[in-house]
Amino acid sequence: MGRDIQALIAQMTLEEKAGMCSGLDFWRLKGVERLGIPTIMVTDGPHGLRKQQGTSDHLGIFDSVPATCFPSAAGMASSWDRELIGKVGVALSEECQAENVAVLLGPGANIKRSPLCGRNFEYFSEDPYLSSEMATSHIQGVQSQGIGTSLKHFAVNNQEHRRVGVDAIVDERTLREIYLASFEGPVKNGQPWTVMSAYNKVNGTFASENKILLTDILKEEWGHEGFVVTDWGANNDRVDGLAAGQELEMPSSGGLGDRKIVEAVQNGQLSEEALNRAVERILRIIFMSVDNKKPNATYDRDEHHRLARSVASETMVLLKNEGNLLPLAKGKKLAVIGAFAQKPRYQGGGSSHITPTQIDVPFEEIRKLADDSASVVYAQGFHTDTDDLDAILVEEAKKAASEADVAVIIAGLPDRYESEGYDRKHLQMPANQNQLIEAIAGVQSNVVVVLLNGSPIEMPWARQVKSILEAYLGGQAVGGAMADLLFGVANPSGKLAETFPMKLSDNPSFLFFPGEGNRVEYREGIFVGYRYYDTKEVKPLFPFGHGLSYTTYEYSDLVIGSKEIKDTDTVSVQVMVQNTGSHAGKEIIQLYVRDVDSTVIRPAKELKGFAKVELQPGEKKTVTFTLNKRSFAYYNAELKDWHVESGDFDILMGRSSEDIVLSDTIRVESTVILKIKCDRNTMLIDLMNDPHRAPIVQGLIQKFQEGMGVSMTDLESGEGSEMFAEMMKYMPLRTMVAFSQGSFTEEMLDGLVKQLNEL
Amino acid sequence: MGRDIQALIAQMTLEEKAGMCSGLDFWRLKGVERLGIPTIMVTDGPHGLRKQQGTSDHLGIFDSVPATCFPSAAGMASSWDRELIGKVGVALSEECQAENVAVLLGPGANIKRSPLCGRNFEYFSEDPYLSSEMATSHIQGVQSQGIGTSLKHFAVNNQEHRRVGVDAIVDERTLREIYLASFEGPVKNGQPWTVMSAYNKVNGTFASENKILLTDILKEEWGHEGFVVTDWGANNDRVDGLAAGQELEMPSSGGLGDRKIVEAVQNGQLSEEALNRAVERILRIIFMSVDNKKPNATYDRDEHHRLARSVASETMVLLKNEGNLLPLAKGKKLAVIGAFAQKPRYQGGGSSHITPTQIDVPFEEIRKLADDSASVVYAQGFHTDTDDLDAILVEEAKKAASEADVAVIIAGLPDRYESEGYDRKHLQMPANQNQLIEAIAGVQSNVVVVLLNGSPIEMPWARQVKSILEAYLGGQAVGGAMADLLFGVANPSGKLAETFPMKLSDNPSFLFFPGEGNRVEYREGIFVGYRYYDTKEVKPLFPFGHGLSYTTYEYSDLVIGSKEIKDTDTVSVQVMVQNTGSHAGKEIIQLYVRDVDSTVIRPAKELKGFAKVELQPGEKKTVTFTLNKRSFAYYNAELKDWHVESGDFDILMGRSSEDIVLSDTIRVESTVILKIKCDRNTMLIDLMNDPHRAPIVQGLIQKFQEGMGVSMTDLESGEGSEMFAEMMKYMPLRTMVAFSQGSFTEEMLDGLVKQLNEL
Repeated sequence: MGRDIQALIAQMTLEEKAGMCSGLDFWRLKGVERLGIPTIMVTDGPHGLRKQQGTSDHLGIFDSVPATCFPSAAGMASSWDRELIGKVGVALSEECQAENVAVLLGPGANIKRSPLCGRNFEYFSEDPYLSSEMATSHIQGVQSQGIGTSLKHFAVNNQEHRRVGVDAIVDERTLREIYLASFEGPVKNGQPWTVMSAYNKVNGTFASENKILLTDILKEEWGHEGFVVTDWGANNDRVDGLAAGQELEMPSSGGLGDRKIVEAVQNGQLSEEALNRAVERILRIIFMSVDNKKPNATYDRDEHHRLARSVASETMVLLKNEGNLLPLAKGKKLAVIGAFAQKPRYQGGGSSHITPTQIDVPFEEIRKLADDSASVVYAQGFHTDTDDLDAILVEEAKKAASEADVAVIIAGLPDRYESEGYDRKHLQMPANQNQLIEAIAGVQSNVVVVLLNGSPIEMPWARQVKSILEAYLGGQAVGGAMADLLFGVANPSGKLAETFPMKLSDNPSFLFFPGEGNRVEYREGIFVGYRYYDTKEVKPLFPFGHGLSYTTYEYSDLVIGSKEIKDTDTVSVQVMVQNTGSHAGKEIIQLYVRDVDSTVIRPAKELKGFAKVELQPGEKKTVTFTLNKRSFAYYNAELKDWHVESGDFDILMGRSSEDIVLSDTIRVESTVILKIKCDRNTMLIDLMNDPHRAPIVQGLIQKFQEGMGVSMTDLESGEGSEMFAEMMKYMPLRTMVAFSQGSFTEEMLDGLVKQLNEL
Repeated sequence: MGRDIQALIAQMTLEEKAGMCSGLDFWRLKGVERLGIPTIMVTDGPHGLRKQQGTSDHLGIFDSVPATCFPSAAGMASSWDRELIGKVGVALSEECQAENVAVLLGPGANIKRSPLCGRNFEYFSEDPYLSSEMATSHIQGVQSQGIGTSLKHFAVNNQEHRRVGVDAIVDERTLREIYLASFEGPVKNGQPWTVMSAYNKVNGTFASENKILLTDILKEEWGHEGFVVTDWGANNDRVDGLAAGQELEMPSSGGLGDRKIVEAVQNGQLSEEALNRAVERILRIIFMSVDNKKPNATYDRDEHHRLARSVASETMVLLKNEGNLLPLAKGKKLAVIGAFAQKPRYQGGGSSHITPTQIDVPFEEIRKLADDSASVVYAQGFHTDTDDLDAILVEEAKKAASEADVAVIIAGLPDRYESEGYDRKHLQMPANQNQLIEAIAGVQSNVVVVLLNGSPIEMPWARQVKSILEAYLGGQAVGGAMADLLFGVANPSGKLAETFPMKLSDNPSFLFFPGEGNRVEYREGIFVGYRYYDTKEVKPLFPFGHGLSYTTYEYSDLVIGSKEIKDTDTVSVQVMVQNTGSHAGKEIIQLYVRDVDSTVIRPAKELKGFAKVELQPGEKKTVTFTLNKRSFAYYNAELKDWHVESGDFDILMGRSSEDIVLSDTIRVESTVILKIKCDRNTMLIDLMNDPHRAPIVQGLIQKFQEGMGVSMTDLESGEGSEMFAEMMKYMPLRTMVAFSQGSFTEEMLDGLVKQLNEL
């Protein structure tokens, strides 16, 4: 609408403007009644609406209004399905409209640096491209229905341990390629109404006061148009924050933040223009919400529950399926084992914890789909509130398992094992569950383990069971969805958005996670997730991108649009995928790029494209990807830009990061010449790679050889020859002076350096 | 002698003084004839004397006078024998006296960060304590006979790639605990006449201009009394170098360096006192050499050769010996295979490459020790100047092997594979040798592989052969020494001073070695060698400290002198070792310390003591170690000192880093209280650990709970309880203000911080 926000701001008092920059209470922004600026409400997400009534605590220990609980992000990302994520976004948005909530706080685009991070279930992936695509779709879905999002937690908030003060030390290239890249796509392509700054410091400065992050990169470079809200209680210095681009402090500071802003403007510490710009951004979003409000909106709880069920089945990952034990054959006697079969774990703890509209009970849903419900028995197997084995429960479960044809064990992590607020210390499941699984495997050869957990676990029993279905935290319909998959009503199509390592110590951040005191160094740099496992050749338990199906797919006809391009070009890559099995299904095709030869450190490969296609038995489809400069580039911190090094790149088409099916090579030519600045310590080899400088350097080498009394012929033969040739390439210019015995002076060196720099 | 060096300096002209600070030529220092200051000569080491005559090149491609070639440092360190190293030092010193050389350039105490470093054969270990002990013994041995040493390359010179300009970026703690620790012991306990500064930069500054390294640490903190010489050609800015504590530039700069120093003194850039101090250090060493000169010294070449043989047998490591194939049984037919059997590789390439007085031919030495020399046949097997297989040679070798009872393959790395001047790119042996070994293993089940190489290799055939003897670069008597071990004339007693990884990518520096351009980041930090493999649980091919014997040893009766000590105390640790086999032998007992629980990042264990004891069959001895503060401490960069965190430490007694036989625990109490400075972002937990501050903090928590309307009882039960309790501990002080809703003001916070800092 044609509202004149500038005119509105002009009418506001300094106090009113300052007031816009912090909350009215825990969940609401302030309005200004006399100017028609309404109060709007924000509330926790991202996999469901957590609208609190009464006492507000942000921590999930008090009830909120019922809302549909969809699978959490860890599972959503395993769908690799942009459209699906968008659909859930639309449903969430409908619930927000119905509950009169303006902004749903999510999605979380933080990278899974360590599987220990307590909040990983709320994040998408270890890969910034996948994470970025998922977050973008979520934002587009939610915002398509007039509800805002809050892309969080910006940035480098990759652990819960000491999160309100920890200083994340990350080199610039890693920041750009991994941690910021996950936010860059959603900001540029999703334009979230708000971005939530993180609790932690990034390279010495609180994220909420970080001008580089909040202004230089987010607003100016990426063009974010909305406002930045602090994570709840993250504000440190309100004036520094505002100056850095932190528009809104949440929750209410009881007037403290407002007073500080007023004082700062009055004493000249902060310009009123800066305050006006902040208020403008906040008002723009408030009125966007007003303009998109759908009065009297409602939603159909049952329909949303059905959606939650179909979505959940797409987020589960079939990790193992020996002898095609799944889908369960007709007429089998089933033992359904594990306390989670009656009371599933379906969401994580903390601010995302919602009150569901209903909950599917896995055991009941399995019974419903079985041919004969009487043939399905239940045994509890373990308690979830202790890690101690209950021998009686185990014996009962063994008996049930041995009398059945198949044992389905529903296991996973209890609430106390993972939550916002603290990190895990290890990757183990409770000992009683591991022991139970091994006991059952001892009496029954057909064992299916269904896992309910927010992030990777070690599976000491992985070889002893035939099938493993990773159901993550599948939302309120998790029970129905797993039943659909177990019986083949649905065909598993999820793939891992994160590596499952053999053991915790295999993780790249292991040695330095979670840091010392309030400092954590990201020493593994760009080698996060599969970038590390692939490059270091560390065999994971299950690799990034892995997931099985009840059908089979064949890949063929890889075609690269052009085999030689410039870095400014885009190029298409096509591949044919056919369903060669007997079930309809969906396949996730992954495109990785590998820099064949690079002077900078690069991972073995990086995900640069993916597609999910639905195929009937026998059907084939051509999938097309488009690659651009970013697909081949690394971030060059000196250039302060993305840069492609000229050379060959492998295009790798895979079922997973480990299972590359087809590959071909493309040559990319850089249009940017990196010119090194020359000084007295510049090495000959660095000059010889420059066509303009090389002839001069050749002459110098000649001089050097004469000075040493050695001819090239001597050097190319004889014992020390390899060493000599190598050494010469790596000599700095200054060495000429020392070795020339006076014939090449310091003054001549200065002149030479000058000459080389002018070329 | 009572020479008055100050008086001498007072008589010198500015030019004469400047002249003392650079070489006369390639190998000699300047003298001042009119003042009776003689010219002295230095020459390359460290495993033999490389005195060049005629054209000097420092690079080993021209002949030097014959000298005894002892095993290179990689092997010497595998002896773990302080006394033995000292004995070799004495022998080297005798040769220097005979050749009129004043200073032997060595030992090299650089840490083996990566097995790829081309010069690793010249260095001792991946462990700073072992390296430090070996270097100290070398210095003490050489200097005991009036010859100086040059402890090199100071510091952080851990690769050959771009060594003259590469900037090694290392955090301070790692620098102290790993890279400098290897020099600290030798300087303090060995007091080497000279220290050689490295080519590279350390954290942005050339080692040769690095005041922190050369003056603050080396001279002032460690008390080095000699002078620092540049590595040959390492000088960058002569005046900056001198000001930083770099006394001598080598080789001659043709007067250039001298002129720069004179100018700098004349224009006031450099004080004459600084120059005088440098000259004083140089003169003190020159006259130390003069005073210790042994006129007409000679040495017995044959005796030194015999020493080289007995030493070499102690440096070899029996890595594998399935079914006790070694020592070779009497009367067996032997096939000795491999070109190295006739022309062994026994030293590395580069500045340490010497002209030996004689060379043992392995094949001949094996024949000499065999019962019947006619039963020992030779087959060449491979060429050393190519990696290509020679099918004819392989067939010959297979025939010889199949007709023999045992095949002894002498394999390893050719000269071109490793040398000063360049690094390896991989850990593979030449393909033709790997293929040969596999071919021989296909026709003969009794295969012994003897390896001649300067640093670890991958052994794809390790499971296919029964015995592997790592002979390293064993010096001129390598042939005799290996024969002694093969036939049991000597009993293997060496143990690895470095980890042999399964594959290159397992190495901790793999992802970031050798860096990008002129910058290499030591991102693995303190996790070098077994510190990494142990902590990351990466199984090596052969672990640090591993080595077999023809006899067996049992460890018992571990006794720790006191189970509770202060960090200022020393404590004795005793263990009983018995030879329970039938061969006399020497066992290397290793003492590791593990910090059981630490707030700082620490490796799984660290070597803090070792002893080598000789035992007749049945004999037992008690070995005593003494531990002190450094045995338990880490380097605290804030304190700028070594610090022990109070708590339990495991004392681990092992045959190797992997094979810990006995362990016990000691409690060490720190006498230093680390007091954190408090600010508005200090977390409650960090204050609660301080007995003086804790009560105040408890009060605050009470306030916070009231502000939140939550009681401790609520928190300790119910769903979010774990999260809540965790979050509260990690709250920063400032949060009180926000959550108190006005009852705790910013001013009160400031007062509180002040109060806490005064406690």
